[in-house]
Amino acid sequence: MKLLRVGPAGAERPALLDEDNTLRDLSGIVADIDPALLADPAALDRVRAAAAAGRLPEMAAAAEPEGARIGPPLARIGKIVCIGLNFHDHARETGAAVPEEPIVFMKAPDTVVGPHDTVLIPRGSEKTDWEVELAVVIGRTARCLDSHEEALAHVAGYTVGNDVSERAFQIERGGQWDKGKNCETFNPLGPWLVTADEVPDPQALEMRLWVNGELRQDGSTADQIFSVAEVVRYLSHFMTLYPGDVVSTGTPAGVAMGMAEPKPYLRAGDVVELEIEGLGRQRQVMKSA
Amino acid sequence: MKLLRVGPAGAERPALLDEDNTLRDLSGIVADIDPALLADPAALDRVRAAAAAGRLPEMAAAAEPEGARIGPPLARIGKIVCIGLNFHDHARETGAAVPEEPIVFMKAPDTVVGPHDTVLIPRGSEKTDWEVELAVVIGRTARCLDSHEEALAHVAGYTVGNDVSERAFQIERGGQWDKGKNCETFNPLGPWLVTADEVPDPQALEMRLWVNGELRQDGSTADQIFSVAEVVRYLSHFMTLYPGDVVSTGTPAGVAMGMAEPKPYLRAGDVVELEIEGLGRQRQVMKSA
Repeated sequence: MKLLRVGPAGAERPALLDEDNTLRDLSGIVADIDPALLADPAALDRVRAAAAAGRLPEMAAAAEPEGARIGPPLARIGKIVCIGLNFHDHARETGAAVPEEPIVFMKAPDTVVGPHDTVLIPRGSEKTDWEVELAVVIGRTARCLDSHEEALAHVAGYTVGNDVSERAFQIERGGQWDKGKNCETFNPLGPWLVTADEVPDPQALEMRLWVNGELRQDGSTADQIFSVAEVVRYLSHFMTLYPGDVVSTGTPAGVAMGMAEPKPYLRAGDVVELEIEGLGRQRQVMKSA
Repeated sequence: MKLLRVGPAGAERPALLDEDNTLRDLSGIVADIDPALLADPAALDRVRAAAAAGRLPEMAAAAEPEGARIGPPLARIGKIVCIGLNFHDHARETGAAVPEEPIVFMKAPDTVVGPHDTVLIPRGSEKTDWEVELAVVIGRTARCLDSHEEALAHVAGYTVGNDVSERAFQIERGGQWDKGKNCETFNPLGPWLVTADEVPDPQALEMRLWVNGELRQDGSTADQIFSVAEVVRYLSHFMTLYPGDVVSTGTPAGVAMGMAEPKPYLRAGDVVELEIEGLGRQRQVMKSA
């Protein structure tokens, strides 16, 4: 299923995009797309059955306030755990060694915006950068998992994330990366939460990102150093993952930081588009904060 | 005011500890101690007025399930931003240089437990450590603040935090500190959220921590490298702080990591007690996860 949330920011309604690309209203059968829903297989089954039986009303998106604005596909995210330098080609372009273990940092859930919302370039920023990422949504509480099979059984689904990053804040201002990863609007997420059953192999997804129409990132999750299954298994030994947590699994080569001088960091007015095979497409216009 | 939450985990009720150390029930006038309350000065004034007028019923804590268990003093925390190496004496003991700018890392809100709850030593951990910290609770949305005065006006209150840390996970496992800061139960918080009006000078608070009765940390916020006001002002240029966010402002000297070999890292059965002047006292028993 492709689950999404449609409506003005903070007042989105749950929806489903069916196989005919028709938007269906889920608000009659679920309260929201949120951790409680993901943790309730019976509720997800009811949605699936209603969709299959054609019992879901069409959502008149154009009649909604703000038209068909799409919000983040998940409400009340608990935490967002990110993996750094997780693609061979991206590690190469940054001059970093291939990590021996996953590098872990965090974004606050309050950085999340919809897939087509404005992204704010922070005051004083000169190095705002893009990162297309496969975001994994957790469906079951995960502690100290043993195997890759077990790890994948804890995944509810997948979505697209843009791990927007301010490189000077991240690297040149002392200490830890979190400082450059948590500016307001720095995590567009969506458009859809695609349930795991529709993503048979998370290690075979093409991912691309364009800036002002120019292709900048053109990679595949096949190039990930640590697979989705390994990342989820690994993390579960350092922290407990809960339904509705998001794991952002790293970006392929092609970020501004990895390019020749003058590096084309984002400026107000720039347009970033990104997509992952089967998971949909995002488009953001940059604006000064 | 000393605000707190009393009851079983996940079902705490809001309360106030009055000047006679009597527990008063707030559940008749506020839904919870949460970001919505902190963002509503009129609601806080109503609590203050009811307390002053003696109109708050006594809370029969002993009659509650789990007796008088005290939960974290704040529900629905948005994010927890932590400052590393923020005391001169702690920077010295770890052999680190005094940072030129605040070092920023994050703990997920799901690590928070009550001040007297069990702390779990993670599977495979050999270096679980303690850190008494002054935790600052944000009361108003803060973006790009200019002055220290303005920063303090955005603080709702203060509480005690134990920034429990697994040093091997934090430092020896590649990458960023977050990996050793986010194990389950790693952030006991409380007992009280003391409103800012009762803490006239956050840079003059004695803070102490004992392990099995032995005094390990004995410091003061006077030794902070970056003051509470500077930390809040600084952070607001890198991320937006919202009501109910928590900023944990660093720990003084005396952690296990800073001691001579064999360093006395925490083991199952160890008892950690900590307190900050005017903010109350915590006590945790360590248990294997």
